[in-house]
Amino acid sequence: MLGPRRGWQALRRCVSLPRAQREVRLRVREALGAREPAGEVKVQGWVRSVRSQKEVLFLHINDGSSLENLQVVADPSLENRDLTFGSAVEVQGKLVKSPHRMQNMELKAETIRVVGPCDTLAFPLKTKERHPLEYVRQFPHLRCRNNTLGSLLRIRSEATAAIHSFFQDNGYVHIHTPIITSNDCEGAGELFQIETSNEAREPAEKTHFFDVPAFLTVSGQLHLEVMAGAFTHVFTFGPTFRAENSQSRRHLAEFYMVEAELSFTESLEDIMQVMEDLFKTVTSTVFSKCPRDVELFHKYIAPAQKDRLEKTLKNKFVIISYNEAVEILKQASQTFTFKPEWGCDLQTEHEKYLVKHCGEVPVFVINYPYDLKPFYMRDNEDGPQHTVAAVDLLVPGIGELCGGSLREERLPFLRSRLQRLGLTDAYQWYLDLRKFGSVPHGGFGMGFERYLQYILGVENIKDVIPFPRFSHSCLL
Amino acid sequence: MLGPRRGWQALRRCVSLPRAQREVRLRVREALGAREPAGEVKVQGWVRSVRSQKEVLFLHINDGSSLENLQVVADPSLENRDLTFGSAVEVQGKLVKSPHRMQNMELKAETIRVVGPCDTLAFPLKTKERHPLEYVRQFPHLRCRNNTLGSLLRIRSEATAAIHSFFQDNGYVHIHTPIITSNDCEGAGELFQIETSNEAREPAEKTHFFDVPAFLTVSGQLHLEVMAGAFTHVFTFGPTFRAENSQSRRHLAEFYMVEAELSFTESLEDIMQVMEDLFKTVTSTVFSKCPRDVELFHKYIAPAQKDRLEKTLKNKFVIISYNEAVEILKQASQTFTFKPEWGCDLQTEHEKYLVKHCGEVPVFVINYPYDLKPFYMRDNEDGPQHTVAAVDLLVPGIGELCGGSLREERLPFLRSRLQRLGLTDAYQWYLDLRKFGSVPHGGFGMGFERYLQYILGVENIKDVIPFPRFSHSCLL
Repeated sequence: MLGPRRGWQALRRCVSLPRAQREVRLRVREALGAREPAGEVKVQGWVRSVRSQKEVLFLHINDGSSLENLQVVADPSLENRDLTFGSAVEVQGKLVKSPHRMQNMELKAETIRVVGPCDTLAFPLKTKERHPLEYVRQFPHLRCRNNTLGSLLRIRSEATAAIHSFFQDNGYVHIHTPIITSNDCEGAGELFQIETSNEAREPAEKTHFFDVPAFLTVSGQLHLEVMAGAFTHVFTFGPTFRAENSQSRRHLAEFYMVEAELSFTESLEDIMQVMEDLFKTVTSTVFSKCPRDVELFHKYIAPAQKDRLEKTLKNKFVIISYNEAVEILKQASQTFTFKPEWGCDLQTEHEKYLVKHCGEVPVFVINYPYDLKPFYMRDNEDGPQHTVAAVDLLVPGIGELCGGSLREERLPFLRSRLQRLGLTDAYQWYLDLRKFGSVPHGGFGMGFERYLQYILGVENIKDVIPFPRFSHSCLL
Repeated sequence: MLGPRRGWQALRRCVSLPRAQREVRLRVREALGAREPAGEVKVQGWVRSVRSQKEVLFLHINDGSSLENLQVVADPSLENRDLTFGSAVEVQGKLVKSPHRMQNMELKAETIRVVGPCDTLAFPLKTKERHPLEYVRQFPHLRCRNNTLGSLLRIRSEATAAIHSFFQDNGYVHIHTPIITSNDCEGAGELFQIETSNEAREPAEKTHFFDVPAFLTVSGQLHLEVMAGAFTHVFTFGPTFRAENSQSRRHLAEFYMVEAELSFTESLEDIMQVMEDLFKTVTSTVFSKCPRDVELFHKYIAPAQKDRLEKTLKNKFVIISYNEAVEILKQASQTFTFKPEWGCDLQTEHEKYLVKHCGEVPVFVINYPYDLKPFYMRDNEDGPQHTVAAVDLLVPGIGELCGGSLREERLPFLRSRLQRLGLTDAYQWYLDLRKFGSVPHGGFGMGFERYLQYILGVENIKDVIPFPRFSHSCLL
């Protein structure tokens, strides 16, 4: 009988050998950050520029580990016709102090191997060209090789990690709220519905896969509320969906939301405090972890953004009530397309004005009209201008970045509201949460792409997500 | 004109005041871990048991921060009829050393406030009962209040954080691969299709929202490959979907996958090394961060699992080739339902036998028949038994935990394979990746729920995800 050990040992030996003989592999970031010259190293990456002089050949290579390229210095004899912009190379040589001011280290090449050539004529990116974001957006499979998108994706990755850390450090339990759901949390109706794609199915069998109509989630809130009945602090960070037929620079059909829910919370202030802490902690972390990537945006994309954000990080966010907001708008000298009126939703033009009025800083607007908001928001029991304990966070250039509320934890209030809406049957389980150890609780959601747009000053939301999905477009 | 500052300051003052006067709030975990007795504290949570004696009232309360409950000791006069199992309470008092061996600290209550009573008769969970997992599965909105599910969700949260940290620490860039896609990566056809749910739409307008048919992703691999053309190390961790009409204990319609892609990789060993490191690092982290939660599973759910896993963490995983696997199966004394034959897929019974044969440890099976595997896997150019550089990781009790491969980076190989399949047009963008600086690369995916099943010894996959979705079921 063939023993597995024999096979295993033989294989382990044969695959292990080359590894031991292998040179030290360095990433570009490591090579650039090295303090000491190093012996034989190998660096792999894509060529960003080739400059051939009589006595020396200069290459810049990048492997995505940093915005900066590593300069390779080689003998002109190492040049070959495949060594072009966009090609993939392995360079072996010695890491030495660079005589140039611009970089710390450079690689003195001994061998250069072109691993994958690049058809430069057909390649839509060109060497040393600053391609506009609109241009590279046409090539979702290649635009990550562009400097700006490269920086964006590194920043997005760091921000993702910082969000997880923020909640983890504060004792929140992470919950994967479902993507497919039989609820419509917002009641907005702009839902994507799901069916199996098996076209061979007989019409007679055309029943739902889940027995009920199923949709892509618009928010994980209701599911987080389930969890907030067992854990006092929970969060989720995942994709959410809207079938909005909009081509706006602030909307996508698929986007990411950070959502948190806190139990034993009786004031909106607690919720706002978490929103503000989250924003400030994550932003500071990103700025300190990717200084060069962030600099690219603050230098070339949105030059005024840096100073504004630094001020924002130092100051308390402003808080105004919806009532005050309407008064401010009514007294504005500006004429609005939508006349500000108590009971009406704040329009983009109103949000813009309010943020400007408060000094181009983040502004919490709290306590919205009862009739404007969904059934789950907590009744403030005030009057005659009846409000709920809702909060929106408005930020310059974007508008609504976060939305939150206290939730109606009182069974009689919730039951009568659902009855009026004819939703009692659908939300029996949600009422159950109030029957069995209900607690005052609340939470919020933050649009992750809008967050990135705001801190980096990126005009179009399609440029802050790896693969944007919007009406008429689902590339790749 | 109403200044925003006025409103802001007034509000800030009024919402800040109660906070300053508020007592020190402690979570149960913090209270239990306190080294010193503490003055006035407040603990909030749900009652897990009430024991009323003549001279003293004992409560156990839990807030989800740990498996352990905090014991509250109170004067019987503090009892009231709403103070039952399942109710939500706020207890104010002094944290003192417990005279009992079982716990470190206990709370001497001064006041007990029932925040939310519990209709215990209707409540499907009962005090001090060990409900089977099948029973609590019927109540997806309440089962998180059960000890086992509570522990599971804390472990799941820690494992999620540990996976992010593992990749972050190793220089991987996190990518949100899209959920909605126009590709079918696996070509398996068991896809969910997406449409807008707007029923008012005119039939004439019944065009696709995205202009093309769109599906829920089955894998982020192809999108990660895009990114592997700019970053040498990328990963994603998100939901994936299969419209499989299966009621198996190992399958869900919506489940989570960890996927990684590495560039400049020419050997399967590199990929296997990452799979093994990921498994071992994350498991060690979870075991050390949630010892009590893990213990619950290893004590009550799968008593043999602990020793087996500790052995697994210390040893190298076994590697065998598909060819060897088939030989082992052919020589087995056992009779299989599916006769083992070169060129056929390994069935569950085969996987089980192989794992047992190797000593109930994780087993990598590598180099599968060319014709069994999808178009993107790298041709080993061997023969006459033609294989590709694929790898599956089989583990005891589960079967396939991970799957990976080197990808076909050579343009001519990939092009002719796609041509034979008639897929050249659909995958033009994928061919592009090989035209412009192609590099040898590979990657893998690990099923997150199966991972949790394996390390905790949980029989049914529906018990390791907060809201399971499978055919005929999409609750909440």
